[in-house]
Amino acid sequence: MAGLKRYKKGDPTSYALGITLTMELLTYKMEYVERVYVHSAMKEGETLEKLERLCKEGNVELIRSDKPFHTVSQKENCFVIGVFRKFPETLNRAKDQSHIVLVNPSNAGNIGTIIRSALGFGINHIAVIRPAVDIFDPKAVRASMGALFRTDFAYFDTFKEYQEEYGDREMYPFMLDAKMKIHQMDVKDKCALIFGNEATGLPESFKEVGNSVIIPHTDKIDSLNLPIAASIAMFQATKHTFE
Amino acid sequence: MAGLKRYKKGDPTSYALGITLTMELLTYKMEYVERVYVHSAMKEGETLEKLERLCKEGNVELIRSDKPFHTVSQKENCFVIGVFRKFPETLNRAKDQSHIVLVNPSNAGNIGTIIRSALGFGINHIAVIRPAVDIFDPKAVRASMGALFRTDFAYFDTFKEYQEEYGDREMYPFMLDAKMKIHQMDVKDKCALIFGNEATGLPESFKEVGNSVIIPHTDKIDSLNLPIAASIAMFQATKHTFE
Repeated sequence: MAGLKRYKKGDPTSYALGITLTMELLTYKMEYVERVYVHSAMKEGETLEKLERLCKEGNVELIRSDKPFHTVSQKENCFVIGVFRKFPETLNRAKDQSHIVLVNPSNAGNIGTIIRSALGFGINHIAVIRPAVDIFDPKAVRASMGALFRTDFAYFDTFKEYQEEYGDREMYPFMLDAKMKIHQMDVKDKCALIFGNEATGLPESFKEVGNSVIIPHTDKIDSLNLPIAASIAMFQATKHTFE
Repeated sequence: MAGLKRYKKGDPTSYALGITLTMELLTYKMEYVERVYVHSAMKEGETLEKLERLCKEGNVELIRSDKPFHTVSQKENCFVIGVFRKFPETLNRAKDQSHIVLVNPSNAGNIGTIIRSALGFGINHIAVIRPAVDIFDPKAVRASMGALFRTDFAYFDTFKEYQEEYGDREMYPFMLDAKMKIHQMDVKDKCALIFGNEATGLPESFKEVGNSVIIPHTDKIDSLNLPIAASIAMFQATKHTFE
C-alpha cells in the first residue's frame, strides 16, 4: 500500500482531499472509510489530534506517508487524504422530500457546489440523469465541502425513469423558453427543481413537464452559471421555511 | 515577440484566453487590444473568419504562433489569446448606479463569476476594497466570460474611502450576524450590496453600515459559496425590474 492511483470513474474507492473534508467523511460516512493518509508537512496540534481520535474511534488505519499525495492531490496545501469506498445510492430512503434533478451535468466542481447549496437550503436529495459527471469525482467531493457525505442521491438512465419513480411531486424544469418567471413560483409541497447541462440547458421537451420556469436576466449574458441558477431556484423554492 | 510571459499582477497587460472571450474583448474593449494569437490547431471556418474580420476592422495584429500558448494557457482547448492593456478604473462614470462592493475578495474565479452574474442582473458596477485579488487576472477574466469588458469598476484602499465617494445609496452588508433576513429586503433606489472575504466574511464593524442582511440557511453548511450568496442577493435586490 505504498502509493495511490489517480482517480478514475470506475474505481470502487474515491478520495477526500484535505483535513476538513476528511473530518466530514469520518463524521458522516465512517463505515465507508478505508484509511487515512497524513503528510509529513501536517502540523502537530489539536486538529491532527482530533483526526487521530476519530480514526481510532472508527478503527480506521491512519498512515503517515507523503507518497500518495504526489499522484492524488494537485493542491499544495493538502496534507490529509481520506480513502473511502463509494457508498450506495439512497434516494429511496425518504419519499416525501424535495429533489434537485440534474440532467446531464458535465462539470464535477459544479455538481459539488450544487450539493453544498442544496444542503444549505435543506434539500439534500439529488437525482442525476445520465450521461453525467461522476458524483464521486474527488473534485465534486471537494467542491461539496463534505455536503456529499450528508446527501441522498441516485443516478437514472433517462428522465422518464426518474419520473416513473418520483413523478408524484411538483415539477419545475428551469429553462429559457418557460411558462412562468421564477418570481411567480410558489412551492407548497415537495418538489423537483430540474436543471439541464451547463452548455446546452434542458431539451425543449421539458416544456411539457410540470411548470417550466425562467430566471430572467439581461441579454448582456448568455446564461447564469449552473450552480448559481440552481441556488437561486432553491432559494426561491424554500423561501417559506426560512422567511 | 516570439513568446508571452506568464501573467503577473503588476503587468500592464493581461490575456483573454479562448476565442469567445477574445471576441468579447474585441467587441467591447477594442481600443485596448494589443494583438491576438491564433494556434495552428484552430479550425478554419466562420468563427475564425469573424475573428480575422474583427481584428482587421480594429487594426489589431493577428499572429499565428503556437509558442505563446505554452506559457500562458493551461487549458487544452484554448486556441486564441487576446493580449490587452489593462483599462482604467471607471466607477465614476455614472453616479446613479447600484454597486456590488467586494471587501477583500481573494479568489480570481469568484470575482469573475460575480461580475458575470452582476451583468446578468443589470448591476455592472463593482467596487473592490483592498487587499484583494486582481480583477485582471486571466482566471477572473475567463470566469467573467467577457462580462468584465462591459463592467465599470474601481479599487479602494479602505471601505471608508468607498463610502466617502459613494455613500449616498442604500447600503446592504451581507453577514451572518445581521439586522434582517434577505426576504425583508426591499430595494427601491440605487444600492450597494456588500460582501466579505471568502473565508472570513465581513468584519463585525459592518453591522453599523446601513441595513445588514443575512441569507438564512441550515446549520449543515458553514456558508454559501461567495458567488452564490452574491447572486442570490442581486436576484432579490433587482426583483422589481425583472418581475
